[in-house]
Amino acid sequence: MATSKKKASDKVLVGILTGSPNDVPVVEKAKEVLDMLGIPSELKVLSAHRTPERVTKYISNARANGIEVIIACAGMAAHLAGVVAAHTTLPVIGVPLASGALNGFDALLSTVQMPPGIPVATVGVDNSKNAAYLAARIVGLTRPEVIKKIEADLDAQRKKYDQV
Amino acid sequence: MATSKKKASDKVLVGILTGSPNDVPVVEKAKEVLDMLGIPSELKVLSAHRTPERVTKYISNARANGIEVIIACAGMAAHLAGVVAAHTTLPVIGVPLASGALNGFDALLSTVQMPPGIPVATVGVDNSKNAAYLAARIVGLTRPEVIKKIEADLDAQRKKYDQV
Amino acid sequence: MATSKKKASDKVLVGILTGSPNDVPVVEKAKEVLDMLGIPSELKVLSAHRTPERVTKYISNARANGIEVIIACAGMAAHLAGVVAAHTTLPVIGVPLASGALNGFDALLSTVQMPPGIPVATVGVDNSKNAAYLAARIVGLTRPEVIKKIEADLDAQRKKYDQV
Amino acid sequence: MATSKKKASDKVLVGILTGSPNDVPVVEKAKEVLDMLGIPSELKVLSAHRTPERVTKYISNARANGIEVIIACAGMAAHLAGVVAAHTTLPVIGVPLASGALNGFDALLSTVQMPPGIPVATVGVDNSKNAAYLAARIVGLTRPEVIKKIEADLDAQRKKYDQV
Amino acid sequence: MATSKKKASDKVLVGILTGSPNDVPVVEKAKEVLDMLGIPSELKVLSAHRTPERVTKYISNARANGIEVIIACAGMAAHLAGVVAAHTTLPVIGVPLASGALNGFDALLSTVQMPPGIPVATVGVDNSKNAAYLAARIVGLTRPEVIKKIEADLDAQRKKYDQV
Amino acid sequence: MATSKKKASDKVLVGILTGSPNDVPVVEKAKEVLDMLGIPSELKVLSAHRTPERVTKYISNARANGIEVIIACAGMAAHLAGVVAAHTTLPVIGVPLASGALNGFDALLSTVQMPPGIPVATVGVDNSKNAAYLAARIVGLTRPEVIKKIEADLDAQRKKYDQV
Amino acid sequence: MATSKKKASDKVLVGILTGSPNDVPVVEKAKEVLDMLGIPSELKVLSAHRTPERVTKYISNARANGIEVIIACAGMAAHLAGVVAAHTTLPVIGVPLASGALNGFDALLSTVQMPPGIPVATVGVDNSKNAAYLAARIVGLTRPEVIKKIEADLDAQRKKYDQV
Amino acid sequence: MATSKKKASDKVLVGILTGSPNDVPVVEKAKEVLDMLGIPSELKVLSAHRTPERVTKYISNARANGIEVIIACAGMAAHLAGVVAAHTTLPVIGVPLASGALNGFDALLSTVQMPPGIPVATVGVDNSKNAAYLAARIVGLTRPEVIKKIEADLDAQRKKYDQV
Repeated sequence: MATSKKKASDKVLVGILTGSPNDVPVVEKAKEVLDMLGIPSELKVLSAHRTPERVTKYISNARANGIEVIIACAGMAAHLAGVVAAHTTLPVIGVPLASGALNGFDALLSTVQMPPGIPVATVGVDNSKNAAYLAARIVGLTRPEVIKKIEADLDAQRKKYDQV
Repeated sequence: MATSKKKASDKVLVGILTGSPNDVPVVEKAKEVLDMLGIPSELKVLSAHRTPERVTKYISNARANGIEVIIACAGMAAHLAGVVAAHTTLPVIGVPLASGALNGFDALLSTVQMPPGIPVATVGVDNSKNAAYLAARIVGLTRPEVIKKIEADLDAQRKKYDQV
Repeated sequence: MATSKKKASDKVLVGILTGSPNDVPVVEKAKEVLDMLGIPSELKVLSAHRTPERVTKYISNARANGIEVIIACAGMAAHLAGVVAAHTTLPVIGVPLASGALNGFDALLSTVQMPPGIPVATVGVDNSKNAAYLAARIVGLTRPEVIKKIEADLDAQRKKYDQV
Repeated sequence: MATSKKKASDKVLVGILTGSPNDVPVVEKAKEVLDMLGIPSELKVLSAHRTPERVTKYISNARANGIEVIIACAGMAAHLAGVVAAHTTLPVIGVPLASGALNGFDALLSTVQMPPGIPVATVGVDNSKNAAYLAARIVGLTRPEVIKKIEADLDAQRKKYDQV
Repeated sequence: MATSKKKASDKVLVGILTGSPNDVPVVEKAKEVLDMLGIPSELKVLSAHRTPERVTKYISNARANGIEVIIACAGMAAHLAGVVAAHTTLPVIGVPLASGALNGFDALLSTVQMPPGIPVATVGVDNSKNAAYLAARIVGLTRPEVIKKIEADLDAQRKKYDQV
Repeated sequence: MATSKKKASDKVLVGILTGSPNDVPVVEKAKEVLDMLGIPSELKVLSAHRTPERVTKYISNARANGIEVIIACAGMAAHLAGVVAAHTTLPVIGVPLASGALNGFDALLSTVQMPPGIPVATVGVDNSKNAAYLAARIVGLTRPEVIKKIEADLDAQRKKYDQV
Repeated sequence: MATSKKKASDKVLVGILTGSPNDVPVVEKAKEVLDMLGIPSELKVLSAHRTPERVTKYISNARANGIEVIIACAGMAAHLAGVVAAHTTLPVIGVPLASGALNGFDALLSTVQMPPGIPVATVGVDNSKNAAYLAARIVGLTRPEVIKKIEADLDAQRKKYDQV
Repeated sequence: MATSKKKASDKVLVGILTGSPNDVPVVEKAKEVLDMLGIPSELKVLSAHRTPERVTKYISNARANGIEVIIACAGMAAHLAGVVAAHTTLPVIGVPLASGALNGFDALLSTVQMPPGIPVATVGVDNSKNAAYLAARIVGLTRPEVIKKIEADLDAQRKKYDQV
């Protein structure tokens, strides 16, 4: 599984959490986008319901560990992002996953409808890539080289439109 | 607010938690039903997102304190019942509340779609009464006098059908 | 089909009912979880609409027969759990099944939105496992050995998170 | 409440059942339409969940008592029409009622999605009038004077379009 | 395609209409049930939108031709049943079909939500069998032999529950 | 009701049909927009279900009478626009109305999900104004003065943004 | 990809835009229908989000280039048609595409619910054919030969009903 | 309307855009939260559809003007946030507003379901407060005094739970 081959100097900026081992294939796309944009990240499988203490521990240390954004991915009654947002004042991005019979509608509503003061920055169902792009825009506020890579990526996307 | 006028001998059997002070009027109906059925209970305003440590602390001590069932009520991205269920092996009943623009649809899906192993016994939207009736059926398994009161209540309900 | 290989001394504690022979593969997962937790159970195919008398008869005798929890599984206009709850004061758990074109939305709403006094403890769509875990928490209130097995199972689930 | 002022000779042709006393104001509109079309009917408040035996008893005698169509109205997890249809081979019409937070969506799906062999002729949410008009078309198959009244009513409806 | 092999004496009692040739495989199940119950029927492919005049012509002559019930099946913006109901005072049964991306939700709402006076007896999504069973209950009001066959069929369905 | 005070020379270009007299207040807004843009129109209350022949007659003569666009408004199982589109090759605009318990969701799906070849240009729920603006863009293809008025109106709308 | 083999004299009347190269197979059906009806068209892959300037440029020149109708197809948060409608006073037809987990519900609502003054003529989910038929009805207002071809096509569709 | 009483030295960090003057009362709550947290902001009424050029102009200059986060609020087919996100690489927060008949469901899906590369950080329906809290967590990454104010606010929220 997603072993982060980071050098000692690669301080992790974005923590990616996912609620179930089964979701790793979808969630890894977030890591791939962050890798492509040169943003060090790590992917952890932690569950709001099965391993709540580990979630709390990870979150409590996150800012001190240099993490600036946390991406939390979960399906069905997707509580992970909300639980994370309740234990940190870092920006938290939620990715609702389309597991189960209700097509991700359940996860979308469970992720986005948070009470005032505990916001989750929600992206589209299964759209872990966009969680990474959003995290990049945030960490890019103080890192111009990230914004340059985002712009280059957008240019590359646009070029695909020239080829059709 | 819901002050439980219990005698020293009234050991609380059912803990009722609600995620927001605004929801107390709906949630108190659960307490009223439990009072009517002679089941000692207490109502606590605790939030999965604002006061997570208090939730965890309350839950951790619940079984030792003699509590047999926990009712958790919350609206929107209703995580309270799930968080409670993750910290206890007591039966947990979830009441989705219809606060916000989406009519409780969000809270219903956020409450019921839990991962295997962390079940939440979900009742209908805003139906805190039924959470109490369900709790009564559970604590009644070892208390025949509760079942008798449930039956008397059902009879009283049926009688209303004679009067129309 | 699910023949329960119980010894003479295994008094059935949980009755699992399902509305259609086609649903047995999904429903049997509830029995497997209960078996794993050492809780004697039996699976019966009974329909609220096709065999209502058998449903009523089974329910009427359930408490006297030592049953403590009934799990009722049904799809589409899923009335089974509600009909069962109307004929007993035992706790009744409903599992909405995702058969048909509407993805289980119909079964979820048909199961959970019960009138006050006739509660159905509803779990997620197709989540028969969670019905079993919920039943285990209920029968575990008076059986510490069940709670120990639940905790061991939760530990085993958590361990899977260490391996990713 | 809806006292049916029928003469001794008025054999009831349509039984109207409703699951809750609260729903009588909506349901009475069915009776008013049947009265207007000269079809004897009676309105009974009977609940699939609170008074199931009375429902069964009423249904079992219905055909022998001369009833040709049963209209069953219920909200939320609207099981009444389905339970009725399971105990008779008369045509059963279901009216989903919009009580509760989910706007009748729950009642619609709970009424219409019946298993093969136990059909419920479902009309629109809260549309008890249309249940009456549908019953009238059915009893009208052998009563030309009913069809004439239906046609006169349709003409009267059309005339309203001339006046705008 | 569904050629009705009727004898000269088989007067068609139930007309089955479907809005598209593609839907015939689903719709033919209605005819099979009616055949099994000994009720003469015919299946016509007629569209409310493509062949409206033929629909009107078929409906206008239906009662005179001895037809007692019309079953109308359609998907998406399913207008066929409503258009049929507007041109006759016979009972009209609507079957919403799950064609297209929205899973039959569109067809269900388009079929059931009719204005007062123009009722469509709606059955579940894709449940053409239940349309046939409902038609049988209606034509059975004056044909005891049909009711006997319905009861025999229900018994046969029940027997399947003995074999699991 | 909406009497069109047109001069003899005002040849009606847009026919506005609505399925129920109750909907006139919402539908008149379409006429007001068309009046404001100088496009002669007329508002007719005609029902696909109650007055289908009048609908057909109106539509059949529409092109010959100089009408270029038909706007059809209806709620619930909103068939009017579809029926209109089936009887003409003029462009037909459908306005789903939010009458009834399901908030216009039923009318939206009933209006937009038409079969290939019978298109309905659907606008938002209750958005009769946009039906008028769309009609104006269509009749404006050959009338530059209409486009000028549309542009002036858009400018006026934009000015409101300067004043906040 | 869809190379339009138009002669120098074929002035494009309908511009078909689609938000993603992946959607071309669905969108090309619009072009095929327009080809069949003899209406010159061109298909462009342009995104409201990735290539907004190209969208604006294309739209700004459209009327001057002789284009009379623009068809815009997009999935998920389908903004393309709305953005196009904001930059032109030509009639704009929107096709919501069913890409992603939410079955096109998202695209349908994103396309149809436009503010007053900026209408999008929305057709059914994935129904690019109907966008073409609608465009044909519009350009046919001044081209009787197009209407003749539409009528011939409708006749051909009707003939399929004779063959079943 | 929301006049920002900022001192010359208050460099605006968060731009709040809303699609309609009518939405200002809901949107101003975002400004109030930012004021309370000491984050300079400005509220602009700009529409993706009515004033697209102004939107583009505002966005293009935003980063150079020192803006770090943009909040975009819109109802119905809520395109504003998406359009903004397409013209900047700053983080963009979208607030779906519950205007219109569909309760904000339309705006939620229109805001959140963005294509990869153009993320919108979506918060709950009408939850403009949470957009402000999310913006504060982002600008707080480099401003510890903001995080302190967020923590003080969370403490104040928690205290409300002590008083019930």
